Amino acid sequence: MKKLMNSPSTYVDDSLSGLTFAYPDLVRAGKTGRTIVRRAGVRKGKVGIVTGGGSGHLPLFCGYVGPGLLDACAVGNVFEGPTLQSCLDAIDMADAGAGVLLLYGNYGGDRMNFDMASKMTRVEQVRTVLGIDDIASAGPHERHKRRGVAGITLAFKTAGAAAEGGAPLEEVTRIAQKTIERTHSIGLAWAGCRLPSADEPLVDISDGDVELGIGIHGEPGIWRRPMAPVDALVGEMVERILEDRLPESDGNKVVLMVNNLGATPVDELFIAYRRAHEVLTTNDISIVRSFVGSFATSMEMAGMSISVCFIDDEIEPLFSAPTCSPFWSIQ
Amino acid sequence: MKKLMNSPSTYVDDSLSGLTFAYPDLVRAGKTGRTIVRRAGVRKGKVGIVTGGGSGHLPLFCGYVGPGLLDACAVGNVFEGPTLQSCLDAIDMADAGAGVLLLYGNYGGDRMNFDMASKMTRVEQVRTVLGIDDIASAGPHERHKRRGVAGITLAFKTAGAAAEGGAPLEEVTRIAQKTIERTHSIGLAWAGCRLPSADEPLVDISDGDVELGIGIHGEPGIWRRPMAPVDALVGEMVERILEDRLPESDGNKVVLMVNNLGATPVDELFIAYRRAHEVLTTNDISIVRSFVGSFATSMEMAGMSISVCFIDDEIEPLFSAPTCSPFWSIQ
Repeated sequence: MKKLMNSPSTYVDDSLSGLTFAYPDLVRAGKTGRTIVRRAGVRKGKVGIVTGGGSGHLPLFCGYVGPGLLDACAVGNVFEGPTLQSCLDAIDMADAGAGVLLLYGNYGGDRMNFDMASKMTRVEQVRTVLGIDDIASAGPHERHKRRGVAGITLAFKTAGAAAEGGAPLEEVTRIAQKTIERTHSIGLAWAGCRLPSADEPLVDISDGDVELGIGIHGEPGIWRRPMAPVDALVGEMVERILEDRLPESDGNKVVLMVNNLGATPVDELFIAYRRAHEVLTTNDISIVRSFVGSFATSMEMAGMSISVCFIDDEIEPLFSAPTCSPFWSIQ
Repeated sequence: MKKLMNSPSTYVDDSLSGLTFAYPDLVRAGKTGRTIVRRAGVRKGKVGIVTGGGSGHLPLFCGYVGPGLLDACAVGNVFEGPTLQSCLDAIDMADAGAGVLLLYGNYGGDRMNFDMASKMTRVEQVRTVLGIDDIASAGPHERHKRRGVAGITLAFKTAGAAAEGGAPLEEVTRIAQKTIERTHSIGLAWAGCRLPSADEPLVDISDGDVELGIGIHGEPGIWRRPMAPVDALVGEMVERILEDRLPESDGNKVVLMVNNLGATPVDELFIAYRRAHEVLTTNDISIVRSFVGSFATSMEMAGMSISVCFIDDEIEPLFSAPTCSPFWSIQ
């Protein structure tokens, strides 16, 4: 498991330099160098949206900075939360007088520094919504304990569209919260990733096995078994999502994301998509929009995740609003 | 090296089903089932553009069917050329009365069936342009022998924009040819991929090694050596591209693509991008547009390729023309 890098100590900064070099019209580094912000700044009076998290997950997190999506991102070391200074910088850069929403995954390190930054910042109005879409990380009665995975990008999309459209902070916050609550994700992996400074994989999944419910840092999943046909694996993933849905709010129209956790061939993402589509359709669920590709990765982890967002008439059009970021462009 | 599939025999068809299920507004299967065509059909009087090739390379080839890009794609088995019938079907579906351009990679199997199809088809005007951008596959005096790799997608973009804009067949053909001639690619890999029906990797690159110039089916490259820092590796790749450029036509403005051959972490693509940007800029070359991501893969091959297209005032605006396909959306 070799790495394309100069050294572990330059991994993150070299990658961020590449990102800003590649998309100079869209993004630039913020004050700390570990912040990515919109090149054009934030339109006066628009609610700012900030995310942040560890490196090693691109396009999460800083790949979603741009019109119709996010305004600033605080970037940590690989699989580590961003520093307090990066969080403060990101909040500051996203502020255009209408308040700032912090929208990031439910991880201890991220929470600690973002919470402190939200108290210390000079920005008066700051709200927080946490990504908690990973259904494998806690049961239905402990949803607040769940981790955030690829499904958070769907909340970037809806909240970003609402903010771009001029919605006030409370409204953008509500849209983000609603999207998160209606989004259910689960992962599957058959080989772990390696930290730049390590010699061995972070998680060792033996030759013939696959693990259901693994997290994007290799957090333990629900079970580990011999590799099985995709129809069985994806069938179980979608069934678990359907069991997790909220009958009082989730309807029967969804946005479906099949996300590459890293090293999965694109052809195989579509093989997985086919089965997810089949199971949802058999359950009388209508898929109104699909996203297939790399949205939230774990470096070279071989695996994929499925996210289902049960939409309603309010959030459906937000998925069609135009966006332009390094990794997500919708016309 | 596990595969997310039901069986080797259903690998391609399951993947194509997934693609058409995921993007029903954009694409559908053609007559043979091994053809992907635009959902909306081809506008009457527009030049049709057809590509094709083996599976296992998504987004190549069928991921680029859509407005501003291609009209039809003939799909073969994994790493095998499409059948004659698929080629005939694709040409037929792409025809809207203004002729059809065949734009595909320079591989024996693809050429055989496309050449035969271009003679057998009822479509009167058919032209062919071959992707020959892989500088590692033959020397500068044998450019016609080179293989086509990720750089062909840049010709999809320019020829697709020209055709969408109403250019006649000779013009679309000339634009494709010009883009191909000005595009130079080279690959690098540190782990091979596995065919769905095989137990072992197609190419075995030992633990500590990296191979420069490897092809997208694992064709042998220029050298195999111990893994080195990215700045040295990417530095050599870009230097080789600069040595290969045509002084009489290539200028100093380029489109730069850093392409994931499969299993490379996205963070590392940007680490590679940073160095490519540095070497080009040091050589007084201006990068006017960048593409970083998965454009032409080799299933789970761990590696990346660099493509540089030396643009001129004619083809530069074609890169900015809007497109919408399953894998490439430009606003």
